[in-house]
Amino acid sequence: MTGVIPAAPPWDVAQWFNTDRPLDLAALRGRVIVLGAFQMLCPGCVEHSIPQLKRVHALFPPGDVAVIGLHSVFEHHEAMGAIALRAFLHEYRVEFPVGIDRPGGGDPTPLTMRAYGMQGTPTTILIDRKGRLHRQTFGHLPDLQLGAEVMALVRAGPGLPDQNAGAGAVCSTTGCALM
Amino acid sequence: MTGVIPAAPPWDVAQWFNTDRPLDLAALRGRVIVLGAFQMLCPGCVEHSIPQLKRVHALFPPGDVAVIGLHSVFEHHEAMGAIALRAFLHEYRVEFPVGIDRPGGGDPTPLTMRAYGMQGTPTTILIDRKGRLHRQTFGHLPDLQLGAEVMALVRAGPGLPDQNAGAGAVCSTTGCALM
Amino acid sequence: MTGVIPAAPPWDVAQWFNTDRPLDLAALRGRVIVLGAFQMLCPGCVEHSIPQLKRVHALFPPGDVAVIGLHSVFEHHEAMGAIALRAFLHEYRVEFPVGIDRPGGGDPTPLTMRAYGMQGTPTTILIDRKGRLHRQTFGHLPDLQLGAEVMALVRAGPGLPDQNAGAGAVCSTTGCALM
Amino acid sequence: MTGVIPAAPPWDVAQWFNTDRPLDLAALRGRVIVLGAFQMLCPGCVEHSIPQLKRVHALFPPGDVAVIGLHSVFEHHEAMGAIALRAFLHEYRVEFPVGIDRPGGGDPTPLTMRAYGMQGTPTTILIDRKGRLHRQTFGHLPDLQLGAEVMALVRAGPGLPDQNAGAGAVCSTTGCALM
Repeated sequence: MTGVIPAAPPWDVAQWFNTDRPLDLAALRGRVIVLGAFQMLCPGCVEHSIPQLKRVHALFPPGDVAVIGLHSVFEHHEAMGAIALRAFLHEYRVEFPVGIDRPGGGDPTPLTMRAYGMQGTPTTILIDRKGRLHRQTFGHLPDLQLGAEVMALVRAGPGLPDQNAGAGAVCSTTGCALM
Repeated sequence: MTGVIPAAPPWDVAQWFNTDRPLDLAALRGRVIVLGAFQMLCPGCVEHSIPQLKRVHALFPPGDVAVIGLHSVFEHHEAMGAIALRAFLHEYRVEFPVGIDRPGGGDPTPLTMRAYGMQGTPTTILIDRKGRLHRQTFGHLPDLQLGAEVMALVRAGPGLPDQNAGAGAVCSTTGCALM
Repeated sequence: MTGVIPAAPPWDVAQWFNTDRPLDLAALRGRVIVLGAFQMLCPGCVEHSIPQLKRVHALFPPGDVAVIGLHSVFEHHEAMGAIALRAFLHEYRVEFPVGIDRPGGGDPTPLTMRAYGMQGTPTTILIDRKGRLHRQTFGHLPDLQLGAEVMALVRAGPGLPDQNAGAGAVCSTTGCALM
Repeated sequence: MTGVIPAAPPWDVAQWFNTDRPLDLAALRGRVIVLGAFQMLCPGCVEHSIPQLKRVHALFPPGDVAVIGLHSVFEHHEAMGAIALRAFLHEYRVEFPVGIDRPGGGDPTPLTMRAYGMQGTPTTILIDRKGRLHRQTFGHLPDLQLGAEVMALVRAGPGLPDQNAGAGAVCSTTGCALM
């Protein structure tokens, strides 16, 4: 069944915070990615999603799990620019990398949000070590479930040969099976 | 490092609820066990531990994870007998199996609690598919962490050869490594 | 409109805790009474009502507001007797007086619960300085509202002449004093 | 003791939201005022103060209690301008009047914040029907206490003559009426 898991679409980010260099899926290959799309003036994001992303960031080793925020502004654009976001990240003590989803010209919805077909914010996205999209959920995901799903992807292993490609895998089916 | 993980001590249970037959480690071999030791009149157990055990019970497939309550009464024994516990389990909608930790004669601490060296209630205990004791924590464990740790044990796989016994394992180190 | 506020029915209590002597409405006349009917194995009582009663007890001066618990057991009687209640009050650090609502013979509902026509537990009851029943609510009452209503009764004043009885009442200094 | 309660300093507001006309202490004379000073990017304000002000606004009759927000920006000024505040009020469903505390030239602290000597945000301020400052608290105030204190000021009565000024005051029916 793992063959049907789609590749995560690339990100289109206009500006990064909390990182020295731009990030993309290729740069993070080999790590599980917890991507949280949010808006700084979205109450559900501020109450649930940002604190949860901070907890994930504190719990898992950075070599295994990369927590990334994506500021996907689709309303009140004039109130949620780069300067406002910088102040928000400072006040809310957000220390993981956050990218600004690139505005999309005439469409109020930014480009990455469109590429993923997100329904709104917050959206929680899980990407495995090989860049495949395992979960995309609009709204709140309980901590217990998120912890379990992230760990399932972590335990799939960094050095695993590509099972879709076929050759040479020695990992037992059960031990490496993805969700 | 997996060789040093100790076997979980056996349970000494005087009476079971929510199960047709007595349970023990041998009967649950092959499943991850989340064992929650509690007292029905312990505020921290009622506020945190019981609801958390219910969430674990609801999230994980019963074939992978067995949630077991252990009523380890070490104070107010006269107020927390079997009749009171039955009413408590009914009122709090506890549906997973619960055993009464057997009273220990002159010592107010019951026998299983002593065998595990528990410091109090609530205590959360994780036992892997092979009956080994991976975690024993007195107090509150965050949902995110518990979800991750349970899943790590789930992903170790039911059909794995015993790495302690030595021979023939083909599972990759990373993919099967226990916590 | 105050003329239609009914007198609170008397309490029928089998045993008291946390008080040197039996309490009744006459003994508490002149103070506002916050009466919380509960059962020690009622989840909503333990989660909401008991903590709220403790907050009321901590906030208001005892000379103005008496907080009283009433253990109105209408189910699982064998699990919620006096010995169990004593342990419960100790474990949950309940320090205000609590009375056991007297069992009612053949009827599982105790006598005070019947006299007040309560629908279940928790029930929050407010009685004014003159022994009149101002509020009886089954379920949860928000802290903000409860604080406001208790203070409204406190500010009615201990020395107020009965406004129903007479004409031309002059409000005492105490009754109108600001904080 | 009421004689020592100071008059609340006047407000200096640059712009109002959620009101047809500018508000000041004189316009609200006769009503109790719950004034909440906040910053839209202050986590404690967003988590505790704004929801609490909304609960106060929903509970008390507007003829008795006026809830007023004061946006007292003393940091990240460029991120919390009028356009951003408008979006914030919309997203957080804030329906009570909110004024922008007027910036103070060279000092980052705005003028009303300085006049009141506030230590930070959130600050909760209670002003009685006569414009006197009863409480000014930096940080979180429990709902139970806030409800009680607001009601104490409400019950002081709209039509009360100044008790400090004179003798023989007759309490109005409204001021002493029970619930």
